[in-house]
Amino acid sequence: MPLNHRVRILIACPDRPGIIAAVSQTLLALGGNIVTADQHSEDPDQGMFFMRVEVDFPEGTEEEHTALPFQALASRFGMYLRVSRSDTRKRIAVFVSREDHCLKELAWQCETGEIGASIALVVSNHPHAANWAKTSGIPFYHIPVIPSHKTDAEAEAKALLHDIDLVVLARYMQILSPGFVADWAGRMINIHHSFLPAFIGPNPYRQAFDRGVKLIGATAHYVTADLDQGPIIEQDVQRVDHRHRVHDLRRLGRHVERMVLARAVRWHVEDRVLIHQNRTVVFP
Amino acid sequence: MPLNHRVRILIACPDRPGIIAAVSQTLLALGGNIVTADQHSEDPDQGMFFMRVEVDFPEGTEEEHTALPFQALASRFGMYLRVSRSDTRKRIAVFVSREDHCLKELAWQCETGEIGASIALVVSNHPHAANWAKTSGIPFYHIPVIPSHKTDAEAEAKALLHDIDLVVLARYMQILSPGFVADWAGRMINIHHSFLPAFIGPNPYRQAFDRGVKLIGATAHYVTADLDQGPIIEQDVQRVDHRHRVHDLRRLGRHVERMVLARAVRWHVEDRVLIHQNRTVVFP
Amino acid sequence: MPLNHRVRILIACPDRPGIIAAVSQTLLALGGNIVTADQHSEDPDQGMFFMRVEVDFPEGTEEEHTALPFQALASRFGMYLRVSRSDTRKRIAVFVSREDHCLKELAWQCETGEIGASIALVVSNHPHAANWAKTSGIPFYHIPVIPSHKTDAEAEAKALLHDIDLVVLARYMQILSPGFVADWAGRMINIHHSFLPAFIGPNPYRQAFDRGVKLIGATAHYVTADLDQGPIIEQDVQRVDHRHRVHDLRRLGRHVERMVLARAVRWHVEDRVLIHQNRTVVFP
Amino acid sequence: MPLNHRVRILIACPDRPGIIAAVSQTLLALGGNIVTADQHSEDPDQGMFFMRVEVDFPEGTEEEHTALPFQALASRFGMYLRVSRSDTRKRIAVFVSREDHCLKELAWQCETGEIGASIALVVSNHPHAANWAKTSGIPFYHIPVIPSHKTDAEAEAKALLHDIDLVVLARYMQILSPGFVADWAGRMINIHHSFLPAFIGPNPYRQAFDRGVKLIGATAHYVTADLDQGPIIEQDVQRVDHRHRVHDLRRLGRHVERMVLARAVRWHVEDRVLIHQNRTVVFP
Repeated sequence: MPLNHRVRILIACPDRPGIIAAVSQTLLALGGNIVTADQHSEDPDQGMFFMRVEVDFPEGTEEEHTALPFQALASRFGMYLRVSRSDTRKRIAVFVSREDHCLKELAWQCETGEIGASIALVVSNHPHAANWAKTSGIPFYHIPVIPSHKTDAEAEAKALLHDIDLVVLARYMQILSPGFVADWAGRMINIHHSFLPAFIGPNPYRQAFDRGVKLIGATAHYVTADLDQGPIIEQDVQRVDHRHRVHDLRRLGRHVERMVLARAVRWHVEDRVLIHQNRTVVFP
Repeated sequence: MPLNHRVRILIACPDRPGIIAAVSQTLLALGGNIVTADQHSEDPDQGMFFMRVEVDFPEGTEEEHTALPFQALASRFGMYLRVSRSDTRKRIAVFVSREDHCLKELAWQCETGEIGASIALVVSNHPHAANWAKTSGIPFYHIPVIPSHKTDAEAEAKALLHDIDLVVLARYMQILSPGFVADWAGRMINIHHSFLPAFIGPNPYRQAFDRGVKLIGATAHYVTADLDQGPIIEQDVQRVDHRHRVHDLRRLGRHVERMVLARAVRWHVEDRVLIHQNRTVVFP
Repeated sequence: MPLNHRVRILIACPDRPGIIAAVSQTLLALGGNIVTADQHSEDPDQGMFFMRVEVDFPEGTEEEHTALPFQALASRFGMYLRVSRSDTRKRIAVFVSREDHCLKELAWQCETGEIGASIALVVSNHPHAANWAKTSGIPFYHIPVIPSHKTDAEAEAKALLHDIDLVVLARYMQILSPGFVADWAGRMINIHHSFLPAFIGPNPYRQAFDRGVKLIGATAHYVTADLDQGPIIEQDVQRVDHRHRVHDLRRLGRHVERMVLARAVRWHVEDRVLIHQNRTVVFP
Repeated sequence: MPLNHRVRILIACPDRPGIIAAVSQTLLALGGNIVTADQHSEDPDQGMFFMRVEVDFPEGTEEEHTALPFQALASRFGMYLRVSRSDTRKRIAVFVSREDHCLKELAWQCETGEIGASIALVVSNHPHAANWAKTSGIPFYHIPVIPSHKTDAEAEAKALLHDIDLVVLARYMQILSPGFVADWAGRMINIHHSFLPAFIGPNPYRQAFDRGVKLIGATAHYVTADLDQGPIIEQDVQRVDHRHRVHDLRRLGRHVERMVLARAVRWHVEDRVLIHQNRTVVFP
C-alpha cells in the first residue's frame, strides 16, 4: 500500500549518541521529509530516549519499501518503533454508565474533526443514552452488569470490539477484569473525576467536599490492573470555594472531565503519547 | 479606646431567619456604616451561617460602647462573633528550615503593604537565613532541633511567641507537639508543597514525579494535630510535563508555594477566614 | 400569584448608611428568609451599592402583598430593584451563523439543567444548523441576510421574539441595527472570539496569530450600539504557542468561547448580573 | 578554548528536507552527543525551520575545531546559527523607575540560580532602589531623566553597558531612543503591565478598570522601535472582578508582571527564544 499520506513514527529506546542522526538519515534515504519532530531524553547517560516524527514520503512510496530500513534502525538501537498512517481514522469504543457528558463531548469532537477518529460503538450498562445514540447514528449496546453475571457481560462487550483501536471508559462505573484490561493495555483510557492521586475510589466529589479543597480536578489515564493507578495522560483543575456544595462540584467537574478526556483521546489518536513504566511522554 | 478605624466583624452561627436584619440593625443603631458585607449560608434549614462585615463607626465611638450590643446579638443567635480593628498590624512569627523562598515572599509582601502585618521574628532550625534576617532587620532565632531534645527546642520557641498573632510554618520541616498545635489552633498556618490530599508526607515532589502527574500544587492550611489534615485555606497548581525532573518540580513548585502561602496569610491577617469543622469559609 | 418559590432580588442604588438594614428589615417583616445575600459597595462615600438576595417567602405569600413594601424601599433609597421568581424558566433566542459550537453548548447545558432556561428558537442566516435543530426539537428560522435587505431580515427576526427573555448572539456574524440593540439593552449577550479589548473587529484569531500572542481568549458581553464595547460579563483565556497556526487558534478558541458564553448566560439567567455604566457586577 | 561544558545551538532557516539529518550528522562527526533537541517547522513547503539543540562535546574539544563544520552547515542551508556556551553566566542590566518588584524578583531568581545569570548593574531614574541595591551588592546608577536632557541621560546609561548581554526594562517608565533600541535589538526585554495588545500605552490598569475586564495580564516582549509592539515572549493573566479597584489591579498585577518577566528572562538567558519577523519561537 503506498504511503501517500503523512506518517507518524513513535520511538522509544535507551538513550545513546547518534539516535537522531540515524533516524533522520534513514528517513532522508527513503526520500522522507520530516515535517515535525519532537524528542525527549530523560537523561543522556542512562535514561530513555523518546521521539515522535511526522514524515511525508514521496508519492508512490510503498509501505513494504520502508519496512526493512525501519527494522534495521529499530534493532540497531533496541527501539520500540511504531509507524502509523495519518489517513486511517481510528475507531473508538466508548463505555458509559449513567453520566453521558463525556460521551457526548467525544462524539461532538469526532464529528467536528477535532478528534480525528470515529466512535464505532457505545457500550453501556444503562439504557439511558440509547436514544441519543440512535439519533447520532452510533451503534448502541445495552449490556446490563449484574454482579453475579459480570463475566458474561464482559464477554458480551468483548465480542463487540473487533476493528477497535481504542476503548474509552467515559464515566463507566464498572470494574473490568484483569484479563480484559491486559488485552487493552495502552489502548484503553479512563477518566477519573478527581485530581489523582487525590480521592481515589468512589464518589470523589463527595470526598473533595468533605476535605474542603479549593480546586477540583479530573484525570485521564491509561487503564491498568491497579484501579486509578495507570499512567496519567492529562489532568486539569477548576477553582471552587465554600459556596459550592457536592452537586456544584459535580456540575463544575463535568466540564473539566470532558475537556481533559477529549484532550487525552485526541493525543492518543494522533499518536502523541508514549508510555514508559508508569508515566507518559506526551508530545502535544 | 475609640474605634476611629474600620472594624471587621466575623460571625458564625446556626442559620435561621433574621440574622442579617439583626446584625445590620445593631450596627445602624451604633451609627456604624457597613462598608462591605459577605455572607454564606450552608443551608437555610439547618446549616451554619457565616458573615464578615467591615464597618466604619463615627469618630469617637468607644470600644466599650459597642461591647454590650454585640454581646446581646451574639447570645441571641448563639453566635461566634469576633471584632477586629483594622488599625492594629498583626504580628507574625515565621518558622523556617532550609528553604527560605516562602519566608522571603512574606517579608516582601509585609514590606510593600500587600500583607498588612509585620514579621516580628523568625525561628529556624538552621542558621541559613540569619544573614538575610539581619539585613532585613528581623529578629532571628536559631533553634536547632535535636531529636532527643525536641521538647526543649519547642519550649524555647514557645517562649518567644508573646504578642504574636499568627504563626506561619513557611517550609518548617519539623513536627510540632500536639500541645503546641492546640495552643495555636486557628492561628497557625502551614504550607504543604503538594496539592493536598495528594502526596501527604515527606518529599511530595518526588512522589509527584513518580506518579507522573501533569500538574503540581501547593496547599496552605491551618495546622491541626493530624499532619497535613487541617482546614485548607488556599491551593493552586502549576502545569508540568514529562520534561520536568524532580528538581524542576521543586523549582516550579516554589513559585506556587510562596504565592499560595502569601494569599492565605493575607486573608487570615485581614480576618477573611472562618473555620468550621474541617473546612474554611474565605471571603476574599 | 403566590410566591411559593425562591425569589431573587437585584438592587442598585447610591450607597449610604442603612441600606442593608432596611432591605433585611423589609424582608423580615414580610416573613421572608434570606437564603443568600451578596453585596458590593464601590465606595461607601459616593459610589454605588449593589445587592443580590435570594429569599424564601412563607407559602401562600401573594406577589401583590410584597409589591408595596418593595416600592417603598426602592423609592426611599432611589433604588433600581428587580424581583424575579426562580420558578419561571427564562426563554432564550439564539442567533447563529455558520459556527454552531456555542449554540450546541447552550442547548446542551439547557437540556442538562446547568442553565436553568430553555432555547425557544434559533435564528440563523445560514441553513447549516437546521437539521440539528429539528432533531433537538428547537424551532429553527433560516433568515438569510442580504446586504441590500438587511432591514427586512431584522424585521423578520424581530417578529419572532415574543415571550423571549434573552437574545444570545452565539457567533452571529451580522451587525444588528441600533434600534434592535436598544430594544434588547441588558438582555442581549454576544460572544466575541478574543480577549477584549484586544482584537476588536473581524477575524480576531488571524489578528492574534499575526501579533504572536501567547494566550488567546474569549469575551461574553452585553451588546451595545458600539460594537465589541459593551459591558463584559465574563472572559477566559487559553495558552497557545508558536506551534499553533490560525486554524489551531480557532479550534482551541472554540472551547473557550463556548465555556465563557455558557457561564455568562447562566449568570444572566440566574439574575446574577447587574450593569452599571459600562461595567458589570457579577455575583456568581 | 575547550568546550568542556554543554553547548546550546540555535538555528533558523527556510525549511527544506534534510536539515535535521545534516545537523545531527555534523554534531555526531564532532563527537557531540545531543542532549535535548527541539524543532519547529512553520510549514514544510515554504516556511521557516527553527531548532534548538543542547550538545555535550567530548572533553578537550576546542571551540575553533567546531567553527568550520558549523560554518559549512550554516552556509549550506542559509542558516542563522548561534552557538552559546552554558558555562558563561550572562550579565544583565536592569532599568527601573519607581516600582521595584520586577527588579527584586529578577535579583532573587538570579541569586537562587533559577535564572542562570547575574545582575551586573541597575540603572534608575529614581533613587528609590539605591539602598536595596547597596545591601544586595549590586552597582546602582541613579540617572535622572529630565525631558530637556533625555539624550544625555541615555548616553550616560549607554556608557555603562559594556560586557552586558541583556538589558531588561523592569517597569522603566522612560522611552528610549530608536538608536538605543536598535543597538539592543533582540537583547532588550520589556515588561508591559497589560495583556498586549490590549491597553497599549500609559496606565493600563486604569484602562483595564475602565473597560471592566474580568482578567488582567502582563506581557514580556523584546523592545522594538514601535512601543509595545515588539515580539512577545510570554504573557499571563490573573482573574479579577467587580470588587477590585484600580489599586487592587495594580497589586494583583505586580505578581503577574514579575512572574512573566522572570520566565521571559530565564528563557532568553538559556537561549530558548528565537525571533522571526514579529513573533517568537520559545522552546521552554
